[in-house]
Amino acid sequence: MSASTGSGRYAVGIDFGTESGRAVLVDCADGRELGTAVHVYGNGVIDERLPAPDEDVILEADWALQDPDDYIAVYRNAVPALIAETGVDPAEVVGIGIDFTSCTMLPTTADGTPLCRLDDLRRRPHAWVKLWKHHAAQPEADRINAVAAERGEPWLARYGGKISSEWFVAKSLQILLEAPDVYARADRLIEGADWAVWQLTGVESRNSCTAGYKAMWSKQDGFPASDYFAALDARFEHVVDEKMSREIVPLGTRAGGLTAQAAAWTGLNAGTPVAAANVDAHVSAPAATVTEPGTMVAIMGTSICHILLGDESAYVEGMCGVVEDGVVPGLFGFEAGQSAVGDIFAWFVENCVPAQAREEALRRGLTVHAYLEEEAAKLSPGGSGLIALDWWNGNRSVLVDAELGGLLVGMTLQTDAAELYRALIEATAFGTRVIVEAFRSAGVRVDRIVACGGLPERNKLLMQIYADVTGLEHAVAASSQTPALGAAMFGAVAAGGAAGGHDSIVDASRAMAHLGARRYRPDPDGARVYDELYTEYLRLHDLFGRGGDDVMKNLRRIRASVTGAHPAAGG
Amino acid sequence: MSASTGSGRYAVGIDFGTESGRAVLVDCADGRELGTAVHVYGNGVIDERLPAPDEDVILEADWALQDPDDYIAVYRNAVPALIAETGVDPAEVVGIGIDFTSCTMLPTTADGTPLCRLDDLRRRPHAWVKLWKHHAAQPEADRINAVAAERGEPWLARYGGKISSEWFVAKSLQILLEAPDVYARADRLIEGADWAVWQLTGVESRNSCTAGYKAMWSKQDGFPASDYFAALDARFEHVVDEKMSREIVPLGTRAGGLTAQAAAWTGLNAGTPVAAANVDAHVSAPAATVTEPGTMVAIMGTSICHILLGDESAYVEGMCGVVEDGVVPGLFGFEAGQSAVGDIFAWFVENCVPAQAREEALRRGLTVHAYLEEEAAKLSPGGSGLIALDWWNGNRSVLVDAELGGLLVGMTLQTDAAELYRALIEATAFGTRVIVEAFRSAGVRVDRIVACGGLPERNKLLMQIYADVTGLEHAVAASSQTPALGAAMFGAVAAGGAAGGHDSIVDASRAMAHLGARRYRPDPDGARVYDELYTEYLRLHDLFGRGGDDVMKNLRRIRASVTGAHPAAGG
Repeated sequence: MSASTGSGRYAVGIDFGTESGRAVLVDCADGRELGTAVHVYGNGVIDERLPAPDEDVILEADWALQDPDDYIAVYRNAVPALIAETGVDPAEVVGIGIDFTSCTMLPTTADGTPLCRLDDLRRRPHAWVKLWKHHAAQPEADRINAVAAERGEPWLARYGGKISSEWFVAKSLQILLEAPDVYARADRLIEGADWAVWQLTGVESRNSCTAGYKAMWSKQDGFPASDYFAALDARFEHVVDEKMSREIVPLGTRAGGLTAQAAAWTGLNAGTPVAAANVDAHVSAPAATVTEPGTMVAIMGTSICHILLGDESAYVEGMCGVVEDGVVPGLFGFEAGQSAVGDIFAWFVENCVPAQAREEALRRGLTVHAYLEEEAAKLSPGGSGLIALDWWNGNRSVLVDAELGGLLVGMTLQTDAAELYRALIEATAFGTRVIVEAFRSAGVRVDRIVACGGLPERNKLLMQIYADVTGLEHAVAASSQTPALGAAMFGAVAAGGAAGGHDSIVDASRAMAHLGARRYRPDPDGARVYDELYTEYLRLHDLFGRGGDDVMKNLRRIRASVTGAHPAAGG
Repeated sequence: MSASTGSGRYAVGIDFGTESGRAVLVDCADGRELGTAVHVYGNGVIDERLPAPDEDVILEADWALQDPDDYIAVYRNAVPALIAETGVDPAEVVGIGIDFTSCTMLPTTADGTPLCRLDDLRRRPHAWVKLWKHHAAQPEADRINAVAAERGEPWLARYGGKISSEWFVAKSLQILLEAPDVYARADRLIEGADWAVWQLTGVESRNSCTAGYKAMWSKQDGFPASDYFAALDARFEHVVDEKMSREIVPLGTRAGGLTAQAAAWTGLNAGTPVAAANVDAHVSAPAATVTEPGTMVAIMGTSICHILLGDESAYVEGMCGVVEDGVVPGLFGFEAGQSAVGDIFAWFVENCVPAQAREEALRRGLTVHAYLEEEAAKLSPGGSGLIALDWWNGNRSVLVDAELGGLLVGMTLQTDAAELYRALIEATAFGTRVIVEAFRSAGVRVDRIVACGGLPERNKLLMQIYADVTGLEHAVAASSQTPALGAAMFGAVAAGGAAGGHDSIVDASRAMAHLGARRYRPDPDGARVYDELYTEYLRLHDLFGRGGDDVMKNLRRIRASVTGAHPAAGG
């Protein structure tokens, strides 16, 4: 496809995922995606040993690192491939935006060199990039929460009462406590997102999204006070001033122009505007047409991330965070989440689907998922006689408890795989409804849901069940790569309207973001049965999730005592 | 094998199962099984339509019938085959015993002709044999229980507070209510066990085991009073005197001698002593060496039937029944049960085992069950992080509630099939422990367990888990066909010691019954962890089983409302 068929005003969006980076060329006029190029990270997720030649360095359990040079390789490979594929004239690329997994962070020198590139530090795991799913900082997170609770830190409520081990301060504190010399060598501790923009622009900047959602910053109050950090560890007192920054730029800001070196990597023109960094989930909201309160965006994949906008702040039980300017400048962005959704279906297919179902799927030319969907769609709401609690990976919103486990109830000798599969889908839908109702209880409107991500496109039954269970109309974003589209949209905003981009993300969203034609509307009969089942779900949810019956934690404790595993490790 | 290598004193045991009848020739001296012959019922379980030429008569849901001529075919085929195979001289066969599924019952004319053999009745389903698993008499059972509870009938406590839809009076009442003309034509309503003995001896007799466990009879009080039956239905007032019998003979009684016709069928000598009928589960106790209090017999297969002896009666929560002379003359025989055990494992293998496990099993030359056992055996007690409630087919003892459903809790994304399988085994073991503790609470000793049936031979892991969970030594009966062996032992008793048999079942058991060499003793470490897990099991058991949380019943009610199924039907 040649870009010459478009408007001549294009933006490049680069989406840094967990296994690969993806560059997409988007028409600023209408959001048409003219081409995509993917580069798979050479070192992928580093969770067992460091890459060659240091493969003798073994990582402990729950570690997950990445190689920052893999990100540079995306610039050097995916973007030139995109230009070649689309035939775009680099002069017609008005802006560049990126989005990233988060919190993925790394320690660098003052000029941004990752510590893992230094000869004397490259064999030190703490010198590498800590990927979002690095879960080894749980003791630090426990300490962060305990000290915050003890001191009555007001910001804790913005995070649903609990800071995750995945987040910035926990990961930073882990470096300090476990490798104080590496910590000392780190002039900067920085989000991968911001580092990636720094590599394009030559200028360090920090975006409001990751600062707000992952590093306890708020536009109004800034970071927690130094004496809080001192209470965590005396050496940590000035971490913000020493290794981070108090200058936080709102989303849509032009972070800088492409450097000569980055121009050489990418094949784009030096000076091309680059947007401040963004996060994959949050950048999906405007790419799914959502820039105003009332519509919840559900980014549905292995897990679900919910993004919702509000005119004012609110404290919502178990939310991941509320950040002013965190999604769309001028609004409060709420984030909530379900820790496992597609992962549960994948677990089921991997571990619980009988050979007969696989063979039947093969015979019909379907994937196992599609076969199960077809069979499950033949059942009525309530027809399985089953209900599940969708806590295979704990519960983020609203219970914020990683030690919870899954539950299935109602099996008989006649229960079959399709019924179990449907019950698991329903359970994740009930999980979404709990979150919707938590927002409403806190006075935050939820009138409809727009879904994006891998699941909604593939699974019509799932979307209808979600509509029936929540009683809300569901639409699906037209793009199958909303993060990259969103990143490109912010690139267009960094360019500005006069340069062929857009003056605001709201304008960009109106022009460039679209919904698919299909609407999933609640079926009254299904909704009525699901109301009944939701009563059952909610009672079990509260019984097992709020301390009424601690069987799930007791089972973890017993397992830990016989296997020596960490009770929270989950497997 | 020729019987000529034996003592010259043999007994024939005939075990009437669900799908086939099995005849075994046993040496009265030492219990050695000299040969076995099986005849598969031509019409098997009749649960969809009547056999040809009446296949246009469709049965309703939950019906299960049999053809009485299939039982006669066992006499005509399996017994002659056994004689031919073993080369036994019929003169050396000193006695014959039979055991039967129960309650399997039929209506007959005064001479014992099954009503379904009569031309004008053979197209009437109610004229056929109702098999033990005919579950269509639930409304009648509900009425039997409600009227009994209302009247404060003292015998109800002997059955754990609830009469099953499978039992004699429920099935009889169903005939009366749904086919009063068939009921009127029935001169006799009789257990299949007693009918089968009648066909051998030409004399109607009724045994104390089926009368006691299935027809509410007791040695001390006889049957319930006529006004109780009248309260069920006026036409039912005199059912005992009109269609049953108050003459109940204890087990081990000589019911009669083989008729000329039966001698012609079987190839045995006319006049050979025939024992009063018995039930497959109960007859297994002496065949598993158990004729005294203190040792529980667990007949383990698709479900578990527990048989325990006591010197005096006791009311045990949820037991199936307590009958004086019901198992061994002179003692009280207690029966309890778990409604699904092997069935749950089979369900799991059928519905939840991934193709990868099947392939790996195949590669190792194992059945899927054996492969899962091997993998599950690598786990420690408590190592799965899972717990289950084993109620896939409801719960008989101690909750007596068919509307309960299965529960699994603690799943994570790392949970695998072997962990799930082990959790299901453990759940059934916890179910046994609840029953053991119920007996002890009622003052009935349980010091060790002897297992028999299909499961214990195949599954060493299961036996060890049962030992660890219950804290009781488990042994396994040496015979793999304890019901047929037990039937033969009662045949030997019917003959008596002077005729080469034995004078009592206790004597017969000492001489003819044996245990395998292997003992499963509780492992102290495993038992300690299982004590912890049992606390969790029991709390969930009581929560979901005793009305604390009715989710299982609510799910059935909701399913019934959307599918039109009977809530208790289970699928």
